Order: sequence, then C-alpha cells, then structure tokens
Amino acid sequence: MASRSIRLAVIPGDGIGPEVVAEGLKVLEAVAPTSGLAFEQTSYDLGAARWHRTGETLPDTVLDELREQEVILLGAVGDPSVPSGVLERGLLLRTRFELDHYVNLRPVKLFPGVTTPLSGVKTDDIDMVVVREGTEGPYTGVGGVLRKGTPHEVATQESVNTAFGVERVVRYAFEVAASRPRKKLTLVHKDNVLTFAGDLYQRVLKRVGEEYPQVSTDYVHVDAATMFFVNQPQRFDTVVTDNLFGDIITDIGAAIAGGIGLAASGNVNPDRTAPSMFEPVHGSAPDIAGQGKADPTATILSVAMLLDHVGAAGAARRVEQAVSDDLAERAGLGARSTAQIGDAIAKRVTG
Amino acid sequence: MASRSIRLAVIPGDGIGPEVVAEGLKVLEAVAPTSGLAFEQTSYDLGAARWHRTGETLPDTVLDELREQEVILLGAVGDPSVPSGVLERGLLLRTRFELDHYVNLRPVKLFPGVTTPLSGVKTDDIDMVVVREGTEGPYTGVGGVLRKGTPHEVATQESVNTAFGVERVVRYAFEVAASRPRKKLTLVHKDNVLTFAGDLYQRVLKRVGEEYPQVSTDYVHVDAATMFFVNQPQRFDTVVTDNLFGDIITDIGAAIAGGIGLAASGNVNPDRTAPSMFEPVHGSAPDIAGQGKADPTATILSVAMLLDHVGAAGAARRVEQAVSDDLAERAGLGARSTAQIGDAIAKRVTG
Ligand SMILES: CC(C)[C@H](C(=O)O)[C@@H](O)C(=O)O
Ligand SMILES: CC(C)[C@H](C(=O)O)[C@@H](O)C(=O)O
Repeated sequence: MASRSIRLAVIPGDGIGPEVVAEGLKVLEAVAPTSGLAFEQTSYDLGAARWHRTGETLPDTVLDELREQEVILLGAVGDPSVPSGVLERGLLLRTRFELDHYVNLRPVKLFPGVTTPLSGVKTDDIDMVVVREGTEGPYTGVGGVLRKGTPHEVATQESVNTAFGVERVVRYAFEVAASRPRKKLTLVHKDNVLTFAGDLYQRVLKRVGEEYPQVSTDYVHVDAATMFFVNQPQRFDTVVTDNLFGDIITDIGAAIAGGIGLAASGNVNPDRTAPSMFEPVHGSAPDIAGQGKADPTATILSVAMLLDHVGAAGAARRVEQAVSDDLAERAGLGARSTAQIGDAIAKRVTG
Repeated sequence: MASRSIRLAVIPGDGIGPEVVAEGLKVLEAVAPTSGLAFEQTSYDLGAARWHRTGETLPDTVLDELREQEVILLGAVGDPSVPSGVLERGLLLRTRFELDHYVNLRPVKLFPGVTTPLSGVKTDDIDMVVVREGTEGPYTGVGGVLRKGTPHEVATQESVNTAFGVERVVRYAFEVAASRPRKKLTLVHKDNVLTFAGDLYQRVLKRVGEEYPQVSTDYVHVDAATMFFVNQPQRFDTVVTDNLFGDIITDIGAAIAGGIGLAASGNVNPDRTAPSMFEPVHGSAPDIAGQGKADPTATILSVAMLLDHVGAAGAARRVEQAVSDDLAERAGLGARSTAQIGDAIAKRVTG
C-alpha cells in the first residue's frame, strides 16, 4: 500500500538521550511500514553541547522549523555543567509553552513482570493516566528577585491560572476518563491553601463535568494524593492536575510503576496548531551515558504515544504489546544493553 | 522535687481531634511528674463547630490569649461542612503565621514492628527529619482572582520567599543535621523551574553551610525526591524545603513510615517569641470520629516533641520509647481502641 509520510523532528539531546532515541527510532522504523507510515526525520542538535558551543538554547529559527514538523521525539537534555534552569526554561519549557503543549499526558501503569517497590500490589492496582496542565500554573516563569544577595532579598514565583487554560485541560481529561473503563476523574490540587487557583479548578471541574454525566469525579489534596499513590494506588483512574503537582505526582507514579526507566510522556497540543512532543520522563543521566546501560523502554513507550497521536492506533498497540511482552520476560534475562532491549522489542513488533 | 509549671493551650478541634488529644494528655500527665513538670492546661474551643456557631475561625482575643501560653497541643480541625480553606487559612495557617512558626518539624522514622507499604525496606532505612519552612513560600495567601466566573478569569498565587525567612529555616536545619549521626542535609526544591526562589535557597544553603563544615549538603529536585522517598529512602537524613514541597513530601514520608496515624509534627518558633504548636499530621477524619477507632500515636509522638521543646528531653525519650515498645508489639495484639492504645503507652512511660 502507499505509505503516508510524516515529518518527524528528532531531538536526541544530551547524556543517554541519543542512545535511547536510537532505540525508539529503531522500533518506530520497524513498526511504521506495517501501518503504511513513513517517517521523514530531521534531527536537531539542541541541548548542553550546543549551549556550550554557541550559548543558544532554542534559537527562534529552530523553533520556526520545529513548528513545520508534524511531531517531535525528544530524548533528554541537561548536563551538570550547565547552570540549573538554563536548558529547562530555555529549551524544554520554552518548547512546551511556544508549541502550546497544554496537555502533559503521563500514563502510570504497572506492566506484568515489573517489580514495584510497593508490597502487596497487583498489576491491575496501578493503571492510571495523569493529565498534567502544561502551559501555566507555577511554571510560567513569572516572578522575580529584589535586592538579590542582600539580607533583604525577596524572590517571588507566581502561579498564573486562567479559565481558558484550566478549562481546556479539564475537558481533555474528561475525554480521557470517558474513554476508560472506570470512567473516574480525580482532581488533584491544594484548594484549602491555594484558594484562588484551587477554586478555579474546582468550579471548572464541576461545570465541564455536567457535560460528562457518565464520568464520576473526585477531589484529593496533593499531599494526600502522594500518600495514596503509595498506599492505595487503585484509587486513581484518570487524574487532572496543575503543572507543578503533575510534575511531582508523576515521578511518584514512575517510582511505583517500576521506575523512571519505564515512564513515557507526551507534551500534547490537542488542537494541532503546532506539533506535539513525546519524551521519556527521565533526564539525561550523564553518569551512565555512553555505556549502553540506559533502559530505552520509556522512549519506546513514548513512541507508542506518538503513534497514537498521528492516528496509528494499531501500530501504537503493537509497540505497547511488544514492550509488555519484553517486560514480562525480563526477570529471567539478566542484564541487556540499551541496544539489545531495543532490538528485542523491534523484533517483536514485526514478528 | 518542686515541679516546674508550664502553661499549655489545648485545641482539641473537630472529628477525632478530641479523642486523640485526650490520649496525648493522658500520656503527658503520666510522664510529667517523673520530670518535675506540671502542665497548667487551658482548653480552646476552635474549629468547625465554633465556626458554625459564631462564624469565627480564630478571633483576635483568642490569638492574644494563645500568645500568653508557653506551648500548644492541637488535635485536628476541619469538617466537610465547612468550605475548603476557611479553617485551614483562618485557623491553622493563621496560627502558624501569627506565632511565627517558621520551622515545621516532621520526623519520618520507621519504628520496629511497623508495616511499611515498601517492600524490602529495613527499619534503619527510613530515619529522617524534614525541616519544612512554615511562614512563607506559596502559603502566604498572596494572590487573587480577576473576572471570576467569566471565560477570562485569571487566578494567581504568589510564592514569596525572603533571605530572612530562608536563612533562618536553613540555619535551623543545619543545627538539626549537625546533631544527627549522619550529618547530611538535603535541600529539596525545584530550582530548574522556580528559578528565583530556588536560587535563593541554593545560595543561602551554600553560605550558611560554610559555618557547618561537618555537615555534608546535597540537592534533589522535589519530583525526584518523591521518587527517592519510595525507592531509596536511605538517601535522606535531614531535609530542608519550602512550605509547599514540605507539605507534600511529609505526606509521602508518613505513608512510607507506616501511615498518617503515626506522623507527628511541631510548628516551632525557635526564637521563642511566641508559643510553638504540636499536632499530628493527620486531619479530623470525620468518618471515624467518636468511634474510638482513631490511632492516638501521632498525637502522643507530638507530645514527645512538645516535651523536647520545653526542655524535658528525658521525658520526651521515655514517651518515644514507650511508643516504640507499644508499636513493636502491635502486630500480635489485634484491634485496640483509641483509649486502650493511650492507656498502654501511658502505663509504659511510668512503668
Ligand atoms: C526538566 C523539568 C523542567 C521537567 C518538568 O519539571 O516538567 C521534568 O521534571 C519533567 O517532568 O518533564
Ligand atoms: C491542613 C493544611 C493547611 C496543612 C498544610 O497544608 O500545611 C496540612 O496538610 C499539614 O500538612 O499540616
């Protein structure tokens, strides 16, 4: 059959980024033809190395090129040699904000055979999707510092939340919840302390919820939510939350579902006014870079999310199934390199 | 010997508050004479019931009376019938801010015999103290709402951090770290995103740290910290963090150390310009109130912290030991009522 061509931007990044991205692309290339897809790749050199060389994080010209792509795959960026915040704000968050990635989608699922640090938990007990807001809240960068370095210094950070921004992410979360068997949506916030923002989320949840009578809703404070992730993960099905709380709870999510090596994510622009970006939740892990030790599974699962986003649900399910089968056998396999894991999964998607 | 008299304010509060406070006082009264202490108690009717009756959360006159006390014991306040935030901001946070409780001290310790939801964790693996800032950060209440209820609504929350506020809590944390065998202090923040506030914390940590060469320091992003609480809790000894991050990580701390029924806390004014307040981390749990089902252990451990604060270290250690001994035997004991647990611990402190 004639294949559909999709423009894919690849940002391998720093540390283990290039290694895991290579395996993600290996799996993508293996599965694409089976769905009549062909990916036209352009690689972008962004991250710590470029910053050291040129002082640039995300030049406007590169951003403009990225806008012309259909979808983006990112490995990881960052290095201890770069001051904290430079690449995070200048590259990662800039991309999310400029490309209007207002949904940060993070499944938290315990696959069969994967060891969780929680005792007495069954596979089915951990199966949720976190819908994290991606373009406002405490991540805006609004704030500043006065009298820096003096005993009278004041540093502020402002969480900015809008009806527009909250409604669109809450609506998306209702759609996700409605599509899942349990049809349960939990708002995680801290409305008893952050009363202005929390109240806005609560009112929007209630109002939009009227359009989804089939979805039951629930509210949990963020502090209690972190506790329930550890001692009652079955409590959660779909979760909607703000940018910062989402950052925090999805790391606990990763921990309980077998570690950061397995956690996938999508920075999604559901309106498709700009390309969405898929990336593993983990960082660049410079301590193990270049040694073939990194687990590419999170990137491969991010590729499955990418496939879903471009409408290739069949290919996405095949990748997920291949990962699931691979994970189920890992316990007996001993240590494998990054490439060996990628090879094994790539083989399964075609086999 | 002649006994020293200490003015103690008691705020039993709502739900299970009065039940657990009764057991805390039972243990306090049992141990006090052994240290030559007598507590002169005044009980304050504050919480949901008073708010319903009078509309008051914390009247100025009551606050003035509280200021004249030496120390405060609080059970729990709150009820679903009160709108979220009313008692939290109007009573709990107001007390912390007005009495300058700039240290929110929360030990996270797994006692022998206690079941943790983490698998493969030994008692010694979970033994840390979290020093949470208590009077600034995102808890200031600064912020507001514009165009409420319209599609153009904007809701803001401002995190305000000062050199003055950060330095005093960081200095306190260094003192705590220096007093512990491992002498390790970890700053938990999100300095790659909240760059202004995070940078202030980092600079203060570095500067104050020069006065404590015996303490090693470390930095972990809050998202990673929550993951490490679950899969590498041994990593932490003393933790210093902002008000909101401290709220979140101490709930995971409670979860991994056996649940919210065991988590104690102190809202401490180290300069003693106003009384400090000790309280269990848990809430009022209206669903089990009045049934004798609440575990008073967190309150009793808060009483031990209160004893430390008033200089009765010997009595504090006896209460902790009694709790530890009681916990070690619980597995074999079956269900006990709130009062039975209090009785058993009170008997041990004198026995
Ligand atoms: C690197 C950092 C800016 C980022 C975030 O805080 O969102 C990361 O932690 C994540 O979760 O993707
Ligand atoms: C009730 C609430 C205001 C409070 C807080 O957020 O500090 C509680 O969660 C706590 O940890 O003591």
